[in-house]
Amino acid sequence: MGAPEGPVHEALAALDLVDHHCHGVATGDLDGPGFESLLTEGERWPGLSPFDTPAGVAVRRHCAPLLDLPRHATPEDYVARRAELGAREVTRRFLTAARTGVFCVDTGYAPLPLTPPAALARAGGGTAHEVVRLEGVAEAVAARGVDAGAYADEFRAAALEAVRRPGVVGVKSVAAYRTGFDLDPARPSDAEVTRAARAWLARGGRLDDPVLVRHLLWTAVDLGLPLQLHTGFGDADLRLHRADPSLLTDWLHATVGAVPVLLLHCWPYQRRAAYLAAVFEHVYLDVGLTLHHVGPARARAVLEEALEITPFRKLLYSSDAYGVAEFYHLGALAFRRGLGDLLQDRVDADELHLSDALRLARWAGADNARRVYRLPSGH
Amino acid sequence: MGAPEGPVHEALAALDLVDHHCHGVATGDLDGPGFESLLTEGERWPGLSPFDTPAGVAVRRHCAPLLDLPRHATPEDYVARRAELGAREVTRRFLTAARTGVFCVDTGYAPLPLTPPAALARAGGGTAHEVVRLEGVAEAVAARGVDAGAYADEFRAAALEAVRRPGVVGVKSVAAYRTGFDLDPARPSDAEVTRAARAWLARGGRLDDPVLVRHLLWTAVDLGLPLQLHTGFGDADLRLHRADPSLLTDWLHATVGAVPVLLLHCWPYQRRAAYLAAVFEHVYLDVGLTLHHVGPARARAVLEEALEITPFRKLLYSSDAYGVAEFYHLGALAFRRGLGDLLQDRVDADELHLSDALRLARWAGADNARRVYRLPSGH
Amino acid sequence: MGAPEGPVHEALAALDLVDHHCHGVATGDLDGPGFESLLTEGERWPGLSPFDTPAGVAVRRHCAPLLDLPRHATPEDYVARRAELGAREVTRRFLTAARTGVFCVDTGYAPLPLTPPAALARAGGGTAHEVVRLEGVAEAVAARGVDAGAYADEFRAAALEAVRRPGVVGVKSVAAYRTGFDLDPARPSDAEVTRAARAWLARGGRLDDPVLVRHLLWTAVDLGLPLQLHTGFGDADLRLHRADPSLLTDWLHATVGAVPVLLLHCWPYQRRAAYLAAVFEHVYLDVGLTLHHVGPARARAVLEEALEITPFRKLLYSSDAYGVAEFYHLGALAFRRGLGDLLQDRVDADELHLSDALRLARWAGADNARRVYRLPSGH
Repeated sequence: MGAPEGPVHEALAALDLVDHHCHGVATGDLDGPGFESLLTEGERWPGLSPFDTPAGVAVRRHCAPLLDLPRHATPEDYVARRAELGAREVTRRFLTAARTGVFCVDTGYAPLPLTPPAALARAGGGTAHEVVRLEGVAEAVAARGVDAGAYADEFRAAALEAVRRPGVVGVKSVAAYRTGFDLDPARPSDAEVTRAARAWLARGGRLDDPVLVRHLLWTAVDLGLPLQLHTGFGDADLRLHRADPSLLTDWLHATVGAVPVLLLHCWPYQRRAAYLAAVFEHVYLDVGLTLHHVGPARARAVLEEALEITPFRKLLYSSDAYGVAEFYHLGALAFRRGLGDLLQDRVDADELHLSDALRLARWAGADNARRVYRLPSGH
Repeated sequence: MGAPEGPVHEALAALDLVDHHCHGVATGDLDGPGFESLLTEGERWPGLSPFDTPAGVAVRRHCAPLLDLPRHATPEDYVARRAELGAREVTRRFLTAARTGVFCVDTGYAPLPLTPPAALARAGGGTAHEVVRLEGVAEAVAARGVDAGAYADEFRAAALEAVRRPGVVGVKSVAAYRTGFDLDPARPSDAEVTRAARAWLARGGRLDDPVLVRHLLWTAVDLGLPLQLHTGFGDADLRLHRADPSLLTDWLHATVGAVPVLLLHCWPYQRRAAYLAAVFEHVYLDVGLTLHHVGPARARAVLEEALEITPFRKLLYSSDAYGVAEFYHLGALAFRRGLGDLLQDRVDADELHLSDALRLARWAGADNARRVYRLPSGH
Repeated sequence: MGAPEGPVHEALAALDLVDHHCHGVATGDLDGPGFESLLTEGERWPGLSPFDTPAGVAVRRHCAPLLDLPRHATPEDYVARRAELGAREVTRRFLTAARTGVFCVDTGYAPLPLTPPAALARAGGGTAHEVVRLEGVAEAVAARGVDAGAYADEFRAAALEAVRRPGVVGVKSVAAYRTGFDLDPARPSDAEVTRAARAWLARGGRLDDPVLVRHLLWTAVDLGLPLQLHTGFGDADLRLHRADPSLLTDWLHATVGAVPVLLLHCWPYQRRAAYLAAVFEHVYLDVGLTLHHVGPARARAVLEEALEITPFRKLLYSSDAYGVAEFYHLGALAFRRGLGDLLQDRVDADELHLSDALRLARWAGADNARRVYRLPSGH
């Protein structure tokens, strides 16, 4: 049961990945329940250990050895050893193992205190960039107080200010969570925005008005940076059938020639996302989040579907790791194993030339993201 | 071509399954056309034998030997031998072969005369429990005559009476067939129910009013027993796109903390059902019905998708066998083969520890159902 | 890396396929950009070669040798050699290699000049039939000038005239592109048609009025010939979520007993299409277009899903090749490899008898189409 073999796996092992969408690691030492609650997109439920999931099994199999434990260590041993080593050392080990050269960090979701991008990258021996979550910007504008009639201008100004900070390479929207994608594709008028802002500002709460979500997406287009969109899989706050990226088709037609649009996660809509990437020049996809939740046992199957018709310039890597350091490692491992097995088998069957397989691996693992985000070329 | 080997297969072969959702066997001797019409979710069509389907091929391969015929016997030989042995002996053979310890029988769908639960269990050497189909209860209330204003109370009383009968462990709804799941998640008001009941009682026919179907689902919640929901695959009466379980998300949010909700069949939405089971404590799933229709050749593939992110406490076994005794055997065989192959391969690849594989097999095959339905523990 | 082996592959290699849905080949010599633009359902985009796709890789692997190039030839060499040989010779080589006995050619889509059916069949050594695209007929009626009140009669007369031409075996609709399938299933009234026609004739443009699209589908039923429907995958003009064939269920109920309905392409909805084929006598499916876009590396996986519950009389072969001769060869190769591998493995695992596998291969590759379109039996 050694590492997988062959030139494609070797190339992927040697490649510094570009993780184009991730979050920070929880800064404090996590106790057992705190750790377990981060292992799942659900919650901790009585009588059901988050270790009894595909992700939990993958952690015990692939992460335990990095904590000097045997493969398939018990949850109890795992949690105890993790506490013994301390958060800093655990983070160092998993982020080093992830062999990730660039982290593009979504800094807009932090119910827990998380390591900022620079510290995350330092722990992983890479460099950090930032992705600005636009709903957070809009909600901060509302929180500090704004007239409805000034909302559009102040949101735009705040977004521009946010993206002009050093290190920002993209923006993100969680419209999928807030309204879903079955929305009017047209840019709303000023009057519509003012009216909707008035109601929202009076009501308070998170940004979930359909007009303002649309306005946010169009503001994103104006910013000129690549736009990441959550699609598909996530937590219970989602309506999965409204997070189908194909619902965005009219909006994608309206934004042809504008900014790159990066469809994140996608599962179980990876084929629909692939269709969009195949027919729209500005559309890209990844299967982040999915990879560590399905684990190495199924990462290849998901990648096979994601790649069925996807142009090779259009697939990116992301971990979407959040909170626990294990997922940076597990995401990277599942990506390298899954893509490596897929490509090596095609080379072995003479369906794909080795040089093409190596190119596809390098593109998906790093170069496509460098190109989209205009990052300096890798070493 | 012997039985599949390895400790996981051995454990599954030795395990008495809990079939948490099935129906009865036709009580009479079936003639050829009668038998063939039960092989398919479609109908018998001129020039197309129901044997020329994945399920038909699986019957000839895996059921023929139990009738002392060679594997892949011809349809003619199969039907003739079946008639020769007689319904009682055929039922005994297949139900014994299914090695099912517990049958939870939906008694509310019987266009044909079917064996009652006790007789079914006796033939299979197991014990029987009953699942009450609530649409049938509501339609019986209507059939015996009720004022619209009294409908809600009388339906509730009839449902309570039905579930208090000995042996009842759960209820079921076929809302997917009647309205689909894109329904208002809120509990309807008394006035709404009375108004809808008035129209329905005047119109007659089966319960398909959206307000009354919603009311039925909320009445199910009040009953306090596990609620089985048909989702996905079924016969032509379905609108498959409206049987997508993710359409139920708002209703699942509204029923958190209430009764367990068991998503039946699910195909081709097994990944969406898995998402719901991963993020809602009270949601479970199976791929019953699907397993014998896709046959052992594809049962593993469907189970792989169903298990991609599903917590191991959330997958259950059901055959959803109806009418023909073959499907109890075929469902059980496809489940044991599919799950056994999946788990054994992961153990062999060192992705899963054997003890975890054995636990997952025992949970999915029996213990999860025992836990949800509070059945006595198995032997 | 020779040809795949075993009796099923041999039988498929020897079988003259019936390609029940394809288009013509571009008549002129294509230059590099012209050729590349036909390799993809997207467009040619700066910095992204259409060769860097699964279809492009498959062309270099499986088509290059037929142009006397090594496997995995470079795009430059490929395009150069193609030009050197000339369109006529290239077409001859690929169409001969496709070993297709019958071509049913959709003649209604021709932004480029294409070979007519007879010339296509001649190049392939087979016989040609024609499929009439009804949107084209309706638009021709509008183009030559018609009163709104006479539209229905004139469209019907033109359609009847079109299908009475020698060699016409079926009709086709691209309703999926024009309105999607979430349409009122009922036949529109004369008054509705006249009103809708008045608006459309005044407005001009392609036929995309929901009433007139419905009317077109019902006119197709009246014509009495098999009706091909584009479903699923296609170019950017599509709204993929509205091309889900299960949205057609009410209309399929309304047309039971009428003409055969052939669901084309289907990906990523092949399982939903299979459900429809399993429960409606008059519904059939193929995975054309998909096969050459996913390539031989994934054709089997798509076919596995398409066949999970599909009755063996219900799967047909089509290439949906358009413009480039390569796709007739690649579609046929992917179909033969994918189906052959699937069936041979089931025979080897003793899940399927060889005689059944051979029958299923012959049915799907040729006989099902001959039966549906009432073509003369093959040699």
